[in-house]
Amino acid sequence: MIRIGIIGAKGYTAGELLRILVDHPEVEIAALMARVEGLEPLDLYFPALRGRVAARIEPINLALCAERCDAVFLTLPHTVAQEYAPELIERGVKVLDLSADFRFDSVELFEKTYATRHLAPELNARMPYALPELFRDQIAGAPGLAIPGCYTTASIMALAPAVIHGRELLALDQIVINALSGVSGAGRTPTEGTHFCAVNESVTAYKVGGHRHRPEIEEKLIQLAGVPVRTTFTPHLVPITRGILATCTVPLRGELSNGDALSWYREAYRQEPFVRLLDTGHVPATAATALSNFIDIGVVVDRHAQTLIVISAIDNLVKGASGQAVQAMNALFGLPETTGFFRSEVTV
Amino acid sequence: MIRIGIIGAKGYTAGELLRILVDHPEVEIAALMARVEGLEPLDLYFPALRGRVAARIEPINLALCAERCDAVFLTLPHTVAQEYAPELIERGVKVLDLSADFRFDSVELFEKTYATRHLAPELNARMPYALPELFRDQIAGAPGLAIPGCYTTASIMALAPAVIHGRELLALDQIVINALSGVSGAGRTPTEGTHFCAVNESVTAYKVGGHRHRPEIEEKLIQLAGVPVRTTFTPHLVPITRGILATCTVPLRGELSNGDALSWYREAYRQEPFVRLLDTGHVPATAATALSNFIDIGVVVDRHAQTLIVISAIDNLVKGASGQAVQAMNALFGLPETTGFFRSEVTV
Amino acid sequence: MIRIGIIGAKGYTAGELLRILVDHPEVEIAALMARVEGLEPLDLYFPALRGRVAARIEPINLALCAERCDAVFLTLPHTVAQEYAPELIERGVKVLDLSADFRFDSVELFEKTYATRHLAPELNARMPYALPELFRDQIAGAPGLAIPGCYTTASIMALAPAVIHGRELLALDQIVINALSGVSGAGRTPTEGTHFCAVNESVTAYKVGGHRHRPEIEEKLIQLAGVPVRTTFTPHLVPITRGILATCTVPLRGELSNGDALSWYREAYRQEPFVRLLDTGHVPATAATALSNFIDIGVVVDRHAQTLIVISAIDNLVKGASGQAVQAMNALFGLPETTGFFRSEVTV
Amino acid sequence: MIRIGIIGAKGYTAGELLRILVDHPEVEIAALMARVEGLEPLDLYFPALRGRVAARIEPINLALCAERCDAVFLTLPHTVAQEYAPELIERGVKVLDLSADFRFDSVELFEKTYATRHLAPELNARMPYALPELFRDQIAGAPGLAIPGCYTTASIMALAPAVIHGRELLALDQIVINALSGVSGAGRTPTEGTHFCAVNESVTAYKVGGHRHRPEIEEKLIQLAGVPVRTTFTPHLVPITRGILATCTVPLRGELSNGDALSWYREAYRQEPFVRLLDTGHVPATAATALSNFIDIGVVVDRHAQTLIVISAIDNLVKGASGQAVQAMNALFGLPETTGFFRSEVTV
Repeated sequence: MIRIGIIGAKGYTAGELLRILVDHPEVEIAALMARVEGLEPLDLYFPALRGRVAARIEPINLALCAERCDAVFLTLPHTVAQEYAPELIERGVKVLDLSADFRFDSVELFEKTYATRHLAPELNARMPYALPELFRDQIAGAPGLAIPGCYTTASIMALAPAVIHGRELLALDQIVINALSGVSGAGRTPTEGTHFCAVNESVTAYKVGGHRHRPEIEEKLIQLAGVPVRTTFTPHLVPITRGILATCTVPLRGELSNGDALSWYREAYRQEPFVRLLDTGHVPATAATALSNFIDIGVVVDRHAQTLIVISAIDNLVKGASGQAVQAMNALFGLPETTGFFRSEVTV
Repeated sequence: MIRIGIIGAKGYTAGELLRILVDHPEVEIAALMARVEGLEPLDLYFPALRGRVAARIEPINLALCAERCDAVFLTLPHTVAQEYAPELIERGVKVLDLSADFRFDSVELFEKTYATRHLAPELNARMPYALPELFRDQIAGAPGLAIPGCYTTASIMALAPAVIHGRELLALDQIVINALSGVSGAGRTPTEGTHFCAVNESVTAYKVGGHRHRPEIEEKLIQLAGVPVRTTFTPHLVPITRGILATCTVPLRGELSNGDALSWYREAYRQEPFVRLLDTGHVPATAATALSNFIDIGVVVDRHAQTLIVISAIDNLVKGASGQAVQAMNALFGLPETTGFFRSEVTV
Repeated sequence: MIRIGIIGAKGYTAGELLRILVDHPEVEIAALMARVEGLEPLDLYFPALRGRVAARIEPINLALCAERCDAVFLTLPHTVAQEYAPELIERGVKVLDLSADFRFDSVELFEKTYATRHLAPELNARMPYALPELFRDQIAGAPGLAIPGCYTTASIMALAPAVIHGRELLALDQIVINALSGVSGAGRTPTEGTHFCAVNESVTAYKVGGHRHRPEIEEKLIQLAGVPVRTTFTPHLVPITRGILATCTVPLRGELSNGDALSWYREAYRQEPFVRLLDTGHVPATAATALSNFIDIGVVVDRHAQTLIVISAIDNLVKGASGQAVQAMNALFGLPETTGFFRSEVTV
Repeated sequence: MIRIGIIGAKGYTAGELLRILVDHPEVEIAALMARVEGLEPLDLYFPALRGRVAARIEPINLALCAERCDAVFLTLPHTVAQEYAPELIERGVKVLDLSADFRFDSVELFEKTYATRHLAPELNARMPYALPELFRDQIAGAPGLAIPGCYTTASIMALAPAVIHGRELLALDQIVINALSGVSGAGRTPTEGTHFCAVNESVTAYKVGGHRHRPEIEEKLIQLAGVPVRTTFTPHLVPITRGILATCTVPLRGELSNGDALSWYREAYRQEPFVRLLDTGHVPATAATALSNFIDIGVVVDRHAQTLIVISAIDNLVKGASGQAVQAMNALFGLPETTGFFRSEVTV
């Protein structure tokens, strides 16, 4: 049994980790810590977990956490993870960080994007970007993992096969990503923008031309493509709790059939239990991925406009956060990545 | 007083026409007709109008309708309007058609797009495309008007100033339109796709690469631009009742400042009471336009991606259908276009 | 023209007052004040009003407000209205208070219910409870009015005809009110409970057995009935922005036909332009009253259970707050109560 | 392994059975049948199950089904189950019927309530009402089970301890049940009433004074109480996909403390893994039970009104249908009732 802890145990991604881990056959929940004064019952924050997890939330104590745990999930605001991760790793604990703190290969790009100084640049180099489907080989043996977030997972996985196989055929400097996000992506803290009456019966875009997930998306796509990639990334807020839908449009520079495009994706994701490539004519919908670690991907060549359109759907809290973290933890500990998600005998 | 009728009086756009016209100071509701057996009370279909409109819905009778009315709104499926409009116009009634039947300049393009034979091609040439902000001069004196729909209004108005002023500066053959639509756009007939449980807590795209509003959008933009225009148009369904948000991305071929882009829009829409151009930093949200005839437009130049991003928001049932029809009717009858929408003394 | 002001101009009820008053033919908006540092644009808080109201929000200044206005709407938290109202009235301005501050006849009951000392008990006696349909005769000539809130309006109006006519026939000490409220009833301040993710896809009850609207409901019903009335009042939160549905169940002590019950309601509300009594077989739905000042009421005698069931629906922000305030203002200034709501020539 | 089949495999409750059974360690899905022409892929109806269940939906064939299965779930409209169940049972298969067909002890009451002739009255007597928490002892050895539905489960479980222990203290002939239901309770067939635009942003009541779940609720409560029970049952539709909230109000005839009321519930449900009795001050919310087989119950004595208020929340598709069916199947086959819901080592 892997003894796990969660630091930052009051937020949505922590609740989602618990929902998944409570049914994980190889995991034992050993520590739940957060900024609390004393012990607090878990169901105060997650009434759905009432009666499922006995543990209570206790104040943050890294030494104690390291003592009790083999692996610790950090579900904290960015910069805080940079503070905690080095000590935890020093104390021999594997760290799975769900913040942005270790997601960039380039510390400089992180510092520019988040307008802050990186507090653990050396560790950054040892914390690989844990998107298993694309960077699996970097996971084993790492002291810690940077877990990709929701917009980036949906966008990178939608575009990866295209940028890898379509270097010549696609205008990779003219990619347009329009992404729709559910409200849980904004976190639990109540704000004017997450008030029910602000969100309900409305859709809008935000951070147009300047969202900080774009540099991360581009860094990874450039790495995969080996050539420059440039994106217009426009995030939208939609009145759903969970889900990301990323609609990616890439201009063609030559002829491409729908079948050829699809074959890039089949090749890239053939073995992947969490990727469901839809048949021609089917379009991903977020609801079909809700509460699961699946990413659904649909591919269409628009012959009139001469563009490739790839649409992906995920649950932002699962494949876009906590599910991905558990998948990565499984890989890190040498378990089948689907452990805790599926009964083994189910053919996916 | 203009005596008006509505044929197709049971659908959403009919209800919306009634909501607006009941407070219109120059209009009298003279006929409500639909495919009904006998007289039916209006509040069966529109409980919100209970106590506001005395009329009942009666079976369709073109002669009777023409007798009682000066103008008739057709809120009918496409091809049916082509059947009714010629007779009504012959009988001296102005026709405002909310279907797609007369929206194309090119009858050929209509026939190809809707895979049907046009039943009234001569009349088509005399029914101008009544998007007053862009084609106002064609309205006066027309025997009938083709009222643009929701996706097209949001897209064309978002892009018109750019395609007019940016002929040289923009890659007009690489426009990407991602549009989000509320469910009322699918009409009142219950289908699997409009079931609450299918729509709620989900977002998806549909008709990817082949929606029939694209040819209409392109026909009008080409007309305005005077040069070829090509778009990737991806419609999405979002769990709201009313609203369209169109996010349009156009690659730049040269330098363009945010101020210059904004000035194109200021110039185009300066006098328009229903266009609200947002200041830099503000982004349209559909809720701000709900139940109004406004279109809100925001303009951003993305310097990193070298693209122009224009976002528009409307209420699909108002500026995208019935409000636009009343605005056009006002123009047709020589009234200020805002009649029935605003008290005259309000400065907009 | 009545020159009106709003103090507390940033909240939902203020926005709703503006939405209504901007089209009111006898009103001029003369002052918008709130806790702001300097001038603030209105559309910061109410993007839907962009382009409709020229005024900006300014810091609260009672003297200035009184100078400019004939009537002032107070949309403030309770106890604050008690501070402001006396001075405004002294300066000759009519006050329309949308808080709970002057709603109780019994100052003692107010103090107990709100656990606070009343700051203006003398004025309390001169501020009648402005539910025009039931207490119209107290409005004319008053220096100020206490505007009833949403739960109370829906409940009192649903039960008034029954408690008046059914004194003998109904067990008035065993009334059960189950009320469902939209989220705007909780106000604009973001809280954990109004976060989209807390409200969406969930329904719950709150303040079970102890909501402070119960004493107000009972005080008014006792006044109308002339005999003791006792209610179980259970409010629920439902994922809609606007609307209250109150389902009231009263045990019968003798025989009562549906027709007789309905006749009580017909008699009570026959002349009322804002009350829509539904025919047998129809049930009120909040959506039919949205954005209107209507209250829809349905009456059913359950012969099996031997109970009278009365269901009412309103828009909590309109008939449950701002619409009611404008209706009351109309009455106070001798205008037809429907002024600003309907075009005069419409027969309701 | 229990080989199971589902007849009626296209509806919501079938999908929910599959969602649960796919992770059930003792179950093998052996037959999915429905009114289809030929084989149909499962993900046509349940895109979320794509990649989880290999089986396809085939035309209904009772003999074939009986051959392949040990137990068959019937998710069919009422009266159809009465046709199929006898043959399946004759062929040695256990039947779990999710329709109303075998839920009544009194065939006469069924026939009156559903206005139809019962087709299998003898079998009716051998199909116990499988609400395990209250009628567990009847399950073992039965040839088939009648699975209670959503409104009835929420209402009966909320009231059972009270009617058992409070015979003297409560006015059991004056119970008021107000229940709120999500839209999936109306089934998958698209209707005017389940159209997104009809449900969204609205709440309403329906079948006021005459819902057919009332006789079923009363029959079971009378059985438990041993004295007459009479209820006013008012169902409401709320814009959520899943969930039932039942608010039950019972007048007191004498003194009852909150602690004493709570102790009735503690005693009744102490050993029940799926019942979560909330501490005083907490109120059930449907979201906390979503996708789980839990029922959350909160108990409040309203001292002012002299009533007992009990509120229960369930997921209508799980504890109100398919989860309950799996729980009952576990009991029928001698498995722990939580099998397939929880990992065994979790303490609930």
